[in-house]
Amino acid sequence: MVIVSRQNPLVKELASLREKKGRRARGAFLVEGTKMVREAFAAGMNVLRVAVREDYAGEDFPAPAVVLGAGAFAAVSDEKTPQGIVAEVALPSARLRPPAGNCLFLDGLQDPSNVGAIVRTAVAAGYGELYLADCADPFSPKSVRASMSGVFFARLMQGTREELLSLIGVPLIAADMGGEDVFSFTPPAQFCLAVGSEGSGLTQAVRGRADFTVRIPMDARTESLNAAVSAGVLMYALKAQTHLRR
Amino acid sequence: MVIVSRQNPLVKELASLREKKGRRARGAFLVEGTKMVREAFAAGMNVLRVAVREDYAGEDFPAPAVVLGAGAFAAVSDEKTPQGIVAEVALPSARLRPPAGNCLFLDGLQDPSNVGAIVRTAVAAGYGELYLADCADPFSPKSVRASMSGVFFARLMQGTREELLSLIGVPLIAADMGGEDVFSFTPPAQFCLAVGSEGSGLTQAVRGRADFTVRIPMDARTESLNAAVSAGVLMYALKAQTHLRR
Repeated sequence: MVIVSRQNPLVKELASLREKKGRRARGAFLVEGTKMVREAFAAGMNVLRVAVREDYAGEDFPAPAVVLGAGAFAAVSDEKTPQGIVAEVALPSARLRPPAGNCLFLDGLQDPSNVGAIVRTAVAAGYGELYLADCADPFSPKSVRASMSGVFFARLMQGTREELLSLIGVPLIAADMGGEDVFSFTPPAQFCLAVGSEGSGLTQAVRGRADFTVRIPMDARTESLNAAVSAGVLMYALKAQTHLRR
Repeated sequence: MVIVSRQNPLVKELASLREKKGRRARGAFLVEGTKMVREAFAAGMNVLRVAVREDYAGEDFPAPAVVLGAGAFAAVSDEKTPQGIVAEVALPSARLRPPAGNCLFLDGLQDPSNVGAIVRTAVAAGYGELYLADCADPFSPKSVRASMSGVFFARLMQGTREELLSLIGVPLIAADMGGEDVFSFTPPAQFCLAVGSEGSGLTQAVRGRADFTVRIPMDARTESLNAAVSAGVLMYALKAQTHLRR
């Protein structure tokens, strides 16, 4: 049976996942495109449902499937040129806990694509536990897309600055223009890297809690880097310095 | 005098700068927003004309100014929430020449925001000469925006892979999954870093010309990084290793 009405309750449920309120209400988020859906299964995510557009001719997945007409699918999809498949995936546990390894603290990052790209890099670089204070929701469709499969593997913990900071028992390394050159800095054995937003940097609350501050050396004509680029350079620089030290 | 018609020749000229064809025809590109326009002047760019929306209340600039009605301005602007000011800036020289310092070769990068973010990072990290083969135009509004003021300071040379590669007389370091860990690699005194697109990596032509290949070490669950993040990590890693060596 093909569901054609955008008013169908199931279509409305899926479409609600585009907004944070809907994701919270349903305890689920949206994953879009064949590759991402395949990776959600491969990563062992709890895939609640798959929805395909009636002309979808890609692979099948072992989950309850619904078929939508083009209009109904468009109401659910977040892509400009959709492949015709989305999955509703249960939000992974976000129970707050102290970090087991090196981790990342994101302070007020509002661009969902930057948040997603940072999640992607964090998993790659071994900062799989992320604490997000006042950031764009990493489970928004834009962020999920930019993270590639990063959101399936990272532990994403959202909360207030105060509760997150009080949880992180390891030295905090803050990224700040006035800090030490990260390439000549020797990090402690375990640490949390804190990065702020592109526009305003770290908040005073986070800066005040920092044990160290580091900066990326830059040409004098440059004020700053893209937030995802900057986080990536810092994560890898600290990782490399940690290994050199050992 | 306020120009209200979208059909006004001046409005059509400015609007044409949103497309590569128009930029080439006029030898100019579009810079948008107070901060970017201010930086274009500060960088000594040749600002041909400034156009403001009639309600623009920001600072004045020393260039011929035109005032546009809201509709005419919307036809010119590329922003979702325009500040009400754009400038037409002469394209800087793109005459091909061999690199004087360390440089970057971009191989088939099609995302204008990634190209812009890479230009921004390249200026910051001291890779101010960029060779772009089969890439998104760095002077598109999206790329200019993502570069911040990077396009004002970088030397951006576009051409075919063959002509660009034949021009670069220094060792070529190619970014490739199969390469050496960039954090344990010692680069030569001068080099050109070549990075490919996120989807397909480097073309065979560029890979075949490489003197070295390097990779960013990644968690096994990660396939790749965002192209701008990846280029940023590589540029800074090689820069740091160069300094360590000396």
